Amino acid sequence: MSIRAAVLPAPDQKIELREYPEPELAPGGVLLKTEFSEVCGTDVHLQDGHLQGVPYPIIPGHVSVGRIEKMRGTVKDEHGQPFKEGDQVGFMDVVGSCGKCWYCQVAKASTRCPERKVYGITMPADGLFGGWADKILLRPDVQLLRFPEGLTAEDYIGGGCGLNTAFHAVERAQIRLGDIVLVQGAGPVGLSCAAFATLSGAHEVWMIGAPSKRLEFGRKMGVDRSWDLASTTLEARREEILSRTHGRGPDIVIEATGNPKAIPEGLDLVRDQGRYVVVGHYTDAGEIPINPHTQINRKHVEIRGSWGSDFSHFYRSIQVQAKHKDRFLWREMADRTYSLDDAQKALDAVRAQEVVKALIRPV
Amino acid sequence: MSIRAAVLPAPDQKIELREYPEPELAPGGVLLKTEFSEVCGTDVHLQDGHLQGVPYPIIPGHVSVGRIEKMRGTVKDEHGQPFKEGDQVGFMDVVGSCGKCWYCQVAKASTRCPERKVYGITMPADGLFGGWADKILLRPDVQLLRFPEGLTAEDYIGGGCGLNTAFHAVERAQIRLGDIVLVQGAGPVGLSCAAFATLSGAHEVWMIGAPSKRLEFGRKMGVDRSWDLASTTLEARREEILSRTHGRGPDIVIEATGNPKAIPEGLDLVRDQGRYVVVGHYTDAGEIPINPHTQINRKHVEIRGSWGSDFSHFYRSIQVQAKHKDRFLWREMADRTYSLDDAQKALDAVRAQEVVKALIRPV
Amino acid sequence: MSIRAAVLPAPDQKIELREYPEPELAPGGVLLKTEFSEVCGTDVHLQDGHLQGVPYPIIPGHVSVGRIEKMRGTVKDEHGQPFKEGDQVGFMDVVGSCGKCWYCQVAKASTRCPERKVYGITMPADGLFGGWADKILLRPDVQLLRFPEGLTAEDYIGGGCGLNTAFHAVERAQIRLGDIVLVQGAGPVGLSCAAFATLSGAHEVWMIGAPSKRLEFGRKMGVDRSWDLASTTLEARREEILSRTHGRGPDIVIEATGNPKAIPEGLDLVRDQGRYVVVGHYTDAGEIPINPHTQINRKHVEIRGSWGSDFSHFYRSIQVQAKHKDRFLWREMADRTYSLDDAQKALDAVRAQEVVKALIRPV
Amino acid sequence: MSIRAAVLPAPDQKIELREYPEPELAPGGVLLKTEFSEVCGTDVHLQDGHLQGVPYPIIPGHVSVGRIEKMRGTVKDEHGQPFKEGDQVGFMDVVGSCGKCWYCQVAKASTRCPERKVYGITMPADGLFGGWADKILLRPDVQLLRFPEGLTAEDYIGGGCGLNTAFHAVERAQIRLGDIVLVQGAGPVGLSCAAFATLSGAHEVWMIGAPSKRLEFGRKMGVDRSWDLASTTLEARREEILSRTHGRGPDIVIEATGNPKAIPEGLDLVRDQGRYVVVGHYTDAGEIPINPHTQINRKHVEIRGSWGSDFSHFYRSIQVQAKHKDRFLWREMADRTYSLDDAQKALDAVRAQEVVKALIRPV
Repeated sequence: MSIRAAVLPAPDQKIELREYPEPELAPGGVLLKTEFSEVCGTDVHLQDGHLQGVPYPIIPGHVSVGRIEKMRGTVKDEHGQPFKEGDQVGFMDVVGSCGKCWYCQVAKASTRCPERKVYGITMPADGLFGGWADKILLRPDVQLLRFPEGLTAEDYIGGGCGLNTAFHAVERAQIRLGDIVLVQGAGPVGLSCAAFATLSGAHEVWMIGAPSKRLEFGRKMGVDRSWDLASTTLEARREEILSRTHGRGPDIVIEATGNPKAIPEGLDLVRDQGRYVVVGHYTDAGEIPINPHTQINRKHVEIRGSWGSDFSHFYRSIQVQAKHKDRFLWREMADRTYSLDDAQKALDAVRAQEVVKALIRPV
Repeated sequence: MSIRAAVLPAPDQKIELREYPEPELAPGGVLLKTEFSEVCGTDVHLQDGHLQGVPYPIIPGHVSVGRIEKMRGTVKDEHGQPFKEGDQVGFMDVVGSCGKCWYCQVAKASTRCPERKVYGITMPADGLFGGWADKILLRPDVQLLRFPEGLTAEDYIGGGCGLNTAFHAVERAQIRLGDIVLVQGAGPVGLSCAAFATLSGAHEVWMIGAPSKRLEFGRKMGVDRSWDLASTTLEARREEILSRTHGRGPDIVIEATGNPKAIPEGLDLVRDQGRYVVVGHYTDAGEIPINPHTQINRKHVEIRGSWGSDFSHFYRSIQVQAKHKDRFLWREMADRTYSLDDAQKALDAVRAQEVVKALIRPV
Repeated sequence: MSIRAAVLPAPDQKIELREYPEPELAPGGVLLKTEFSEVCGTDVHLQDGHLQGVPYPIIPGHVSVGRIEKMRGTVKDEHGQPFKEGDQVGFMDVVGSCGKCWYCQVAKASTRCPERKVYGITMPADGLFGGWADKILLRPDVQLLRFPEGLTAEDYIGGGCGLNTAFHAVERAQIRLGDIVLVQGAGPVGLSCAAFATLSGAHEVWMIGAPSKRLEFGRKMGVDRSWDLASTTLEARREEILSRTHGRGPDIVIEATGNPKAIPEGLDLVRDQGRYVVVGHYTDAGEIPINPHTQINRKHVEIRGSWGSDFSHFYRSIQVQAKHKDRFLWREMADRTYSLDDAQKALDAVRAQEVVKALIRPV
Repeated sequence: MSIRAAVLPAPDQKIELREYPEPELAPGGVLLKTEFSEVCGTDVHLQDGHLQGVPYPIIPGHVSVGRIEKMRGTVKDEHGQPFKEGDQVGFMDVVGSCGKCWYCQVAKASTRCPERKVYGITMPADGLFGGWADKILLRPDVQLLRFPEGLTAEDYIGGGCGLNTAFHAVERAQIRLGDIVLVQGAGPVGLSCAAFATLSGAHEVWMIGAPSKRLEFGRKMGVDRSWDLASTTLEARREEILSRTHGRGPDIVIEATGNPKAIPEGLDLVRDQGRYVVVGHYTDAGEIPINPHTQINRKHVEIRGSWGSDFSHFYRSIQVQAKHKDRFLWREMADRTYSLDDAQKALDAVRAQEVVKALIRPV
């Protein structure tokens, strides 16, 4: 039986449906029956040709959830327990970190390994390496993760690709119990940062973002107080934030916007000797002036970029999500679900920011 | 007997010699007979009126060395050993960190305490609170430091105010044994950073700076290789530095220039997941554009401002300097010595960059 | 009007009531009207003469809460805001860290400063330096802390001296979001550790302790699962704990028992490359054998003692307690309240372990 | 042509010479012509049957150096540069860390991966997996390391297996510039710890150990001062060490003895809030009593086990060794070289402690 997939043939083209024969499995390979795959801002960048190293045509959909339809040989989880057919799993979209290069082994910076590939982004369509399809082929080096008890496909995919990213960013933020944390950006990454920051000991979590609907939803993700970019000025936000922190600013600021203008605002707001994590700039949106005296040196501040994620973030974020899924409503973060045939419509809705996040449900 | 001092009456005025009566000592106070006091770039900024909160007239000279002439009561060192008259000592120029405020006690960021004052900069002339004078009055809350055996006044003052600053910056850099360290800037702070980086386990220490004479002197301060700003282009430096690091860049970069242009160069050079310490921007030299995607987020880099220093840096830097004074030639960092009467000439020489550092020897 | 105090005249003597004249205030000094003072295990040790450096006679009661009755001059909080008469405050029982010695300044280990004194323990009765009294004299170097909105005297004193201690221990534990945390000991420190661990990102908090009533109360302090020392064997506990952690053991173990036997059990349980915090051994209960091969070297474990606390722990623990006082029921941790006249009865009840903690309410 | 190897057939048996046919290479496999292989204390334990999981018969020799005789396909170094026949290389004796299990991926504790095997220890003779042989078969997952310019086989093998172990231990010690470091133990690990500690910023490195000849050699490895176990008492050592540290003790103590008695001495000596690294207990030498109050809790000390090493330690230790081989005389640490036929004699000499370390030179 053939496999249907929504394919992006090349930059600036529309998604088209194509059919592929069912692939042979390599030893350790898995064929996953897709339950949901995500449509996020990265997919818009893919259609616009803004990313480098993309081997068009591709099947988009880097983060997906499904059930194991077939395996070749024994495939085990991180505790050494074998998977069986029918198991519901997520998987690390990043594969192929070589484990041998200087970055992997000496710097222990696997997210900077030059060999890594990403499902749905830098892997070709004919390998069935993307989630917008009936089935997904998982190479033997893909790390599957069994869902903890109680976690549904809907919970997980609601968090989606932002989950790992946010988990890593909050880990980089090293929040101490009692810290005031400000998140810039109300998208999926920012909202998950709010939840994880709350769980990591933040005394209060504040958010600057837009639109107001997302900030309202932020209340369900741990945000204690928020400022709407559409209805507040930079000066007004600054004044109120400083007055609520005895003139000092938040202990931790996490940038999750992708907008360069957020950087100087964040640096001005974070308190002296505080920490500023930059996780929103996954694509190049240009330069922004900063002042090395007032915004770095004299502040004695720490600024940390946070790129990608590894299996530790994936593993931990899912355990944590499962435990707290009724306190933080990840499942409501995906607004609308589309069929495979409507994949282009899903992409259009994300592009138009009509939705925070869309889902593809192939069957 | 009266005390002679070189006074800066107000911004944009010349230094003038004034005489003051010998002061009364408070309990725990000390009168120091000055051996040497430093003339550094900050003193030029003081004459130009570029610093805020300066209570002109002042006696410049924040870092000095001398011998105890008089004490009132018992004054002890950090080990509880009492000082005696005639002891040769240095002292922390920063006084008055309150030890009670949120920054001192909760953030443990005493260099950001709003109460701190600095000898020779933010303390008035009539208190005899500056080093360009026969004698210096040390308030009871000044922390004196006994010189380790073998350290001379000339060794210590050669390092001068850059010593603590550099020590703190290198501590912030958290060098691991085997790291490649690049220092931007060949002034006193950069040169001491090179020495401390070498001692902290740097595999090689490289320097970008000018003029060539200072880079040559860098060899006596631990620099293994250097690039002269006057004779290399940014592209040429980048190409060679990357080629010497397998295309990755140094593990650690320390900015000690004060020039905003150094920031993007440093961020481009430091390797992914490396660390960038900004210690050169003690005054405001304006803004510079940076790219949050390529220079922070994707690099997974850590940027740390380093402001001021505390007694731990003062204590440790002097122990270390004493032990390694024959390997790293701090004593040669001060080019010329002037009498109190020639203080303006000393300042002129520093302003003209004829010397790295000038000294005042009152007697 | 004279001040009544419950005084411990000497080791092995009974508490007696004495009267003292109202003291003169030094500039910056405060006279506090006592609302509650705590009776804890340390007070039993004081009566038994087990602590060194105690200047009998003393007024016990190291942690207390009250209202400012009188001040001399302006007394400010850590944000620079002046206190006024009638303000409800707690205060750091530890005073006199010198801020000048090597431990204070170079090691930044103020809890190891040899100059520190503790209210109710190492300070004499005639100074009115203890909480079991109508009024308490606060020296100018005592750090007062204003209660956050909503925190009552009952909430605060329920946490009492264990609050800071536990906060510091949990800080030392460096819990990462998703960690399994095991607390050994169900006393006030252990119970507060459970609450702070939960808030710091623990995935689950487990407890080993006794008696069963305290373990039940643990449920109100964040404990997810517990083992009763009275009804489980070491082997049974070990087997179940390993089976619940895929054979590895908890990521973090915090010892809060004071019983040397807990140490080898904790070291055996904590997972390889985990962290073990020892905070329960404030008095000497003797030696215990450990195996350096199986319990330290091969485990690649990290063991951290946690001694005392500083103002950062005091400040943060109270902010956190105020925010979460309805989720974690500190106020129920104090079982019984006694008048000043019944101080000996309170001590007897603590000695007999009839209560977790007793309170003295002077008026 | 057949390959000669010195084989340990079973516990308590003598070494015998056996011949093996030249093996087939798997893709990525390498056949190494052995230049030197090490004989260390672990080999004595192997002959005595003290280690678990050893698949006798084995070819001992976990750390070796040689030249590439044959490769199948392209084999690259950590910078992506291909090796060529004739290259001189070392290799990580530990292979097979799975990269997939919870310890590898979530805890990032690859030295605790249950899949890891060790050349010369837990790998069978018929695979040619040990260094006491003409040639060594390197599996495709063995990580080879190209020697930095100037490093000879003699330099490298002088450091041998203790090099990585010591490097990791010193990394765990987190020495700060200016710290006093005490090393317990004068064997290969202790001596390399001294060198690496010196290079990492130790102000002084002290050693307690025996025999006196090794302590003398310690001077060539960075030791500034030492105490001979044979001629000093515990009390005398303690008194002198405390008096040299203003009564506080060293900032860092590293245990590299394997003798349980060293543990309480080390814990007593390390200063309050210092750090104690236990790296000497690779085999079980029994229990020792410690006092949790005086030696852990009240000291606020940090104790860290250090087990195994990974490629980062291997890579860095060799770069560092190459740079400093004329300052620290690793090459003199191996006392005697034996032929393959004399392997049992080499083992006897190590057992009798006639030598610090022996070498096997097959050809």
